[in-house]
Formats: sequence, structure tokens, C-alpha cells
Amino acid sequence: MNAQAPVGVFDSGLGGLSVLREIRRLLPREDLLYVADSAHVPYGDKPERLIRERAFTLTRFLVDQGAKAIVVACNTATAAAVGQLREEFTDIPIVAMEPAVKPAVSATRSGTIGVLATVGTLSSARFAALLARHAGEARILTQPCPGLVEQVEAGELTSARTRALLEQYLRPLLAAGADTLILGCTHYPFLKPLIRELAGPNVDIIDTGPAVARQLQRVLDRHGLLRKSGRGVEQFWTSGDSQALQNAASALWGSGVLIEKLPTDTVVI
Amino acid sequence: MNAQAPVGVFDSGLGGLSVLREIRRLLPREDLLYVADSAHVPYGDKPERLIRERAFTLTRFLVDQGAKAIVVACNTATAAAVGQLREEFTDIPIVAMEPAVKPAVSATRSGTIGVLATVGTLSSARFAALLARHAGEARILTQPCPGLVEQVEAGELTSARTRALLEQYLRPLLAAGADTLILGCTHYPFLKPLIRELAGPNVDIIDTGPAVARQLQRVLDRHGLLRKSGRGVEQFWTSGDSQALQNAASALWGSGVLIEKLPTDTVVI
Repeated sequence: MNAQAPVGVFDSGLGGLSVLREIRRLLPREDLLYVADSAHVPYGDKPERLIRERAFTLTRFLVDQGAKAIVVACNTATAAAVGQLREEFTDIPIVAMEPAVKPAVSATRSGTIGVLATVGTLSSARFAALLARHAGEARILTQPCPGLVEQVEAGELTSARTRALLEQYLRPLLAAGADTLILGCTHYPFLKPLIRELAGPNVDIIDTGPAVARQLQRVLDRHGLLRKSGRGVEQFWTSGDSQALQNAASALWGSGVLIEKLPTDTVVI
Repeated sequence: MNAQAPVGVFDSGLGGLSVLREIRRLLPREDLLYVADSAHVPYGDKPERLIRERAFTLTRFLVDQGAKAIVVACNTATAAAVGQLREEFTDIPIVAMEPAVKPAVSATRSGTIGVLATVGTLSSARFAALLARHAGEARILTQPCPGLVEQVEAGELTSARTRALLEQYLRPLLAAGADTLILGCTHYPFLKPLIRELAGPNVDIIDTGPAVARQLQRVLDRHGLLRKSGRGVEQFWTSGDSQALQNAASALWGSGVLIEKLPTDTVVI
């Protein structure tokens, strides 16, 4: 593997851009490839089998583009597929998402933690095992949040509908005394300003993006794969309508994004 | 132990009457003692240590009244205390609640199950272990329901506030495709008509009360403790204001209830 090669990142849609942002911040020299599987977003309510097939297809595409490492920038895909991905792609490091329960246990003062995530993540065996590992350390409540991913995909970060959904999902957690919220989906960091407003200043909001960027840095370093010079660029693909996605992607990324259409054989199941 | 002795039942409040109702239906010959720990309701947001102390105190009281078996008619108390109760009271059978995940896994057609329960139950190590045991069999989503116990205690089974809370708690589960709902708190069966109305006719609502009554029957039978004749009566106590509780208790029980005040040493922690 070559240190000059790019890092491949994929998500069900645009949510993984919140992770890409942290990677770009920490690793300005790396070239980054990003795939939004917009034809299949949201993953949260899809069968595990489908998500696993998509994770294989997209990883294969990124590896074919020369990626030296893969970041699964999607909690649902991680929950459904990361074990099998690592078994299949044995010669490339794969970094993935995990709801940040451990940091939340350290952070909480009230002893009550809320986890906001998709149905797919919360109902996965992987998440059940994570919960069981930390049971007894704090009161950990989970809140499925159907619809939030769609709001972020539509670029609706502050609309009335987004606000109503978030209010509804935050209320039981806050009423239960949660003072620490884990964003268990890579789409949700884009909603952080609204979550902050609704939850108030005394609630910690924990986003896994920065930790994943640091983990990627460690992994690349361990394999001697960190780029030592240059200024990295990004390249974007989508399995959906690239034209339609241009605006939302640019808004979330914070500057102009040129999205290419994925080759057809990567799109179809 | 004597088969003529009564069965002791306790709950944080009046919710356990939903279990008592099932026991009465199945075992019409048994005398039943019921304690509502109304001075400490709701248990759902209290520390485990306190719930454990209360469970010990109330079990001790029921044993002192001659109970031949104990039913912990409270999911939160079961999650917090049943292991230690069984270690402490080794010579009396203790029957307890568990959210009915296994029957729900059998019942669901959509593959998605929702669990409505208190914060205490959902965040317990016992529940985390239950979830981990069934992970992979279905998509199991949990929904903390702060406030619902209080609505039942106030006798507000159909008020606007109760309806608004329930709508809020059911919406994410239904949006995620849940077709089977587990009532993971003994207060919630009293809300079943409203849940049925809000969830629609195609959703299965699973209440653990009947299974717990059958379990009690099996346990009594195994110990040779089933009453063979007579017609059982009920006796009720509360750690709270017995006068104030009279109406709500009678409404939930379906006929006149005379509640006695617990002796003082049972009330104070």
C-alpha cells in the first residue's frame, strides 16, 4: 500500500460529510474519496442484508479507486456490516463508527445518558452488546429517531418539521434527566445547533466524528500510510441523482462540491 | 408453608393492580395481599439503591403478614432488586416481571418490536442482558416513557395529556414499522384501550400480566401451595395517603377498594 493513496469514506447519504469534515480538519494532507449511497438512503429502516450488500459494493468501488484505508462513516452500516467487511477486505484497514458510550459515561453528572440513533443501529446485535458492556455504569436510554436522516438529506437543518421531530425525540430523554446525549448517527452532527437550542446549555452533546478521525490517524500511522506533505483534495460520488444532490452537499460541506454519478454497476443491487 | 396462606403482591403504586387482576382471574381461590408503595411512586426515575431498599421492606412486610409467595408486580423493581430479593428470602417463591420479548419475537410479522417501559427498567443491566439475548431475532426498539406512570396513578387513562404523551412515545415506534408493542411496565395495561386506538388494529399489544399469573400458578402448584377450595379475598395497603388513593384504586380495580395505611416503619426509608 502506498502512503500517497487516498482514504475512502462512504455513508448512506450526506451524513458522513460530518465525519469527512473532521478527517479533513485533522489530516489536511490526505486525499479523500467520498461516496453517498443516496439511491438507498436512509439505511436506518432497511434490512441488514441489503445494507451489507451495499457496504460490500461501495467498499469494493473505493478499493478499486486505490483507497489505502476505508472509513465506514455510517453507524447503521457499521452495525450491520463491519465485521464481515473486515473479513472480506483483509488487506486494508477499516475504521468504523460506534456510539460513544464510554466518553458519555465519563461525562455524565446526572448519571443518565440518551442515545439518538436510527432504528437499524439501535436494534442491531452489535449495539445490544455495546449496551450490555456498559450496563450498570450509567442509565443509558435509547431513542429511535425515524425521519431525521431524511431531514438532513433534504438540507432541512432548522425547518419546523425538523424542530418538531427533534423536540419529540429529546423530550423523554430530557424528562428522564439525561445530561449527556450521544449522536449515534453521522447525520445528526448537522443538527447539533438545533439540538443545543432545544436541550439547553447544560447538556453535553457527544459526536463520534472527531474520535473516528483520530482513530483513522492512528491506524494510518501504524501502517506507515500517513501522507507527509502536500494538500489533500476531495472527490465525491453518489449512487443517486448527482444533479439534485449538488446544493445540499455544498451546503453541508461548506463549499462547492462537485458530485459525480457512480458507475452503473455500483448503483444496482 | 401453608396452602391456606395468602399471596403477597407489591408495586410502586397502583400499576400492579393490572397483574393482581390477572391473578384474581386465574386463581379465584387465593387470598391476595397488595401493597402500593405510593409514597415512592414512580420508581422509574429513582436510584436503584432506593428501589432495592423498598423492595426488601415491602417483601418483609408481606412475609410478616403470612404470605406464602411474593409477586413483584413492578418491572422497575424486578430489574433493580429481584436477584437480591431471592438471595435474601430463600424460603419463599418470588415471581417477577420481565418484558415479554420472547412472545413478541414470535408474534411480529414486520420483524420490528417496540418496548414501552420506564427509564429504570430500560437502563437496567437486567434489561440490557435480555436485549442482548434476543438481538438478531428481531429489530427491538425501546422507548422510555417518563410521565405515563403518573398519569395512571392519577386515574387519567384517557385525558388529553395522557393521549399527547402516548402519541409522542408511539410515533417513532410506529414510524419504524413496529407491529408488536411490549408493555414493559405494569401501569401500562390500564392504557391499553388508548394505545389500541392510537396504534390501530394491526398492532399486537403484549402485556405480561397473564403470563405472570400463570407462572405464579405453576410455582404454587410445584410447592403444593395452591388453595383447593374457598373464594379468595383481597387486602390492600399503601405507603401513601390511603384516603386520597381510594378513588383511583377503586376505578382501576373495578370495584370498591378499602386501602389501609401501611404501618409507619414500613413507610420510612
